Amino acid sequence: MIPPASGFPVGEYRARLQRAQRRMAAEGLDALLLTTEADIRYFTGFLTRFWESPTRPWFLILPAAGSPAAVIPAIGVALMARTWIEDIRSWPSPAPGDDGVTLLAETLTELLGSRARVGVPMGPESHLRMPLSDWARVQALSGLEFTGGARIVAGLRAVKSEAEIDRIRAACAVADRAFARVPEVARAGAGLDQVFRRFQALCLEEGADWVPYLAGAAAPGGYADVISPAGPEPLSPGDVLMLDTGLMRDGYFCDFDRNFSVGAPSDAVRDAHAALVEAVECAAEQARPGQTAAGLHRVLSDALAGHGTPAAGRLGHGLGLQLTEGLSLIPADDTVLAPGMVITLEPGIELGAGRIMVHEENIVIRDGAPEFLSTPAGREIAVLEG
Amino acid sequence: MIPPASGFPVGEYRARLQRAQRRMAAEGLDALLLTTEADIRYFTGFLTRFWESPTRPWFLILPAAGSPAAVIPAIGVALMARTWIEDIRSWPSPAPGDDGVTLLAETLTELLGSRARVGVPMGPESHLRMPLSDWARVQALSGLEFTGGARIVAGLRAVKSEAEIDRIRAACAVADRAFARVPEVARAGAGLDQVFRRFQALCLEEGADWVPYLAGAAAPGGYADVISPAGPEPLSPGDVLMLDTGLMRDGYFCDFDRNFSVGAPSDAVRDAHAALVEAVECAAEQARPGQTAAGLHRVLSDALAGHGTPAAGRLGHGLGLQLTEGLSLIPADDTVLAPGMVITLEPGIELGAGRIMVHEENIVIRDGAPEFLSTPAGREIAVLEG
Repeated sequence: MIPPASGFPVGEYRARLQRAQRRMAAEGLDALLLTTEADIRYFTGFLTRFWESPTRPWFLILPAAGSPAAVIPAIGVALMARTWIEDIRSWPSPAPGDDGVTLLAETLTELLGSRARVGVPMGPESHLRMPLSDWARVQALSGLEFTGGARIVAGLRAVKSEAEIDRIRAACAVADRAFARVPEVARAGAGLDQVFRRFQALCLEEGADWVPYLAGAAAPGGYADVISPAGPEPLSPGDVLMLDTGLMRDGYFCDFDRNFSVGAPSDAVRDAHAALVEAVECAAEQARPGQTAAGLHRVLSDALAGHGTPAAGRLGHGLGLQLTEGLSLIPADDTVLAPGMVITLEPGIELGAGRIMVHEENIVIRDGAPEFLSTPAGREIAVLEG
Repeated sequence: MIPPASGFPVGEYRARLQRAQRRMAAEGLDALLLTTEADIRYFTGFLTRFWESPTRPWFLILPAAGSPAAVIPAIGVALMARTWIEDIRSWPSPAPGDDGVTLLAETLTELLGSRARVGVPMGPESHLRMPLSDWARVQALSGLEFTGGARIVAGLRAVKSEAEIDRIRAACAVADRAFARVPEVARAGAGLDQVFRRFQALCLEEGADWVPYLAGAAAPGGYADVISPAGPEPLSPGDVLMLDTGLMRDGYFCDFDRNFSVGAPSDAVRDAHAALVEAVECAAEQARPGQTAAGLHRVLSDALAGHGTPAAGRLGHGLGLQLTEGLSLIPADDTVLAPGMVITLEPGIELGAGRIMVHEENIVIRDGAPEFLSTPAGREIAVLEG
């Protein structure tokens, strides 16, 4: 078995499985059935960009005792065989009429018997990555009881191992280096779409395997929203440029942004940037085991209260195998922070109607003070050629 | 209303809606409920990479009469307001406990009454992008009848407008230019992972907005599979390098590959490449309205029969808003080709145990002979510095 370049030692996967199995026992589940890229990769190390194709379903069965079984399209067998998974069953997909349905149902009953209780992720952030009509047939054919997955996988994924933290730190370092080179590709007159293209190329040059996410904006004295694609409009003096990237390195994401002033910043922009950085510093001071997601949201909001209107929405989130995963820094999330959780701190501030600024860093919760995985930005906003 | 850079004129979206509404009437559906990026973008023009975050669900209701309604997280309102959609309802997501569930159920019953029959895509290639537990609550709260979507959206998306074909042609042209520059970044001694990074940078430099998909491989005299990520192993003389990209330009994909010989090719590799290109030529000759997906599969298989073992699996597929969508060139797919369908021709050939070569082009079905959207490769395999 040759582990894929980005895999972990088998011991890491065994430990993940054992933790899941302990939780299954506690919840009275005989197995978990997983269908999404991140959940399947977490337990197998199966890493491919082929999930971009929606055509074929993929399944992983984690029994409460024993070894996992992958039920996957034939096109994935060679790659899955390079992971630690030994029980690999496949069918020639796409197969209109029976695209893995019978094979999955038969494998479930073979491994679990005919009276098993199978957990399927059904809670926040989850989706079932297969056609609903096929899902109904799997339920009918197998005759098993399917129930929620008790957030077992989400709970495990939320707390990273040191090996995972190393990966995220490496992804952050790539973005650090790319952000430091933004002045090479962005100045007054450059089209925002070209800046986006060139910044992604910098991420690749600095070591990203690919760049699944880049958003941002540029507008005078603050931007309107943070999820728009880039248009051809050129940067102008007085614009605030924000670039927010989630790049992938060895299977793990970073997710943070940087703001830049095109030419000298106004006092309002300079002050807002300093306030955002200070808010992150305040939150990092409080981001320790026992603190809650809601508590960190309050710290960030309070820190900005003297400087303008804190932006609505969540002010941070977990990350790791996905750009966003796990907790949200919002008043309604009482998740308690624990060592090994990797999160973003992402305060925003409103500078006027339709003008916001958002700043973001990545940290890992430690016993005591957190560790910054991104290199924290200074309070002075970076300045690009105006 | 400022249309996003990548949007179409409003008339294009109105026409798509009207076609969907005619199909809904024929199927006895009062509405369609859509949840995925491509389906929602098809009817709205809403283009953002923010879908990379799995946290928030997004909904679009297409009523059988009247205008669409978007039920979306607050973070998307500014961008959705730049599309032609006027009925936009939002909630502050993430909202544990009620993440759009009540708002969606209420909007459905307000727009459709309490006895409506709502189609939801449930067939091949579909998935429901929301948590299953929330889906159960939407069904219970609304009291409506939810049924399959009769493949209405998939059927409409399969036949592209000239405006869409222009976009795909432009995406293909970007990849054409990037492939022509592969000798700049790949030669004996270069690590495959570095080749992948540099090729993606070339795609961006040549005009890709981003590069959602790159797979490939390099191995002596043929490769083992086509979905693996790249490792650090250096290219060696005698390797066949394959790069297969799905890049995005203005919201549309191309999806084709190119093969390269590192140093002079063996006769087997040279012959296989020529046979693959000839197979594509044969299939293109037959790819006309009235032909079927299964028929094209047979043409490709027959063309290769004299040259070795045709590779298993599908030998092409539709593409457009997604890397793969719609028909599959397999024996079991009887889809009849129609003008405006954009497909890949993707024959593969086995050269020995664990050694295949795959070649791919993109075409659009026309009255008469198809139009190549990718610039067809020559029969002689390209040679890189050995």
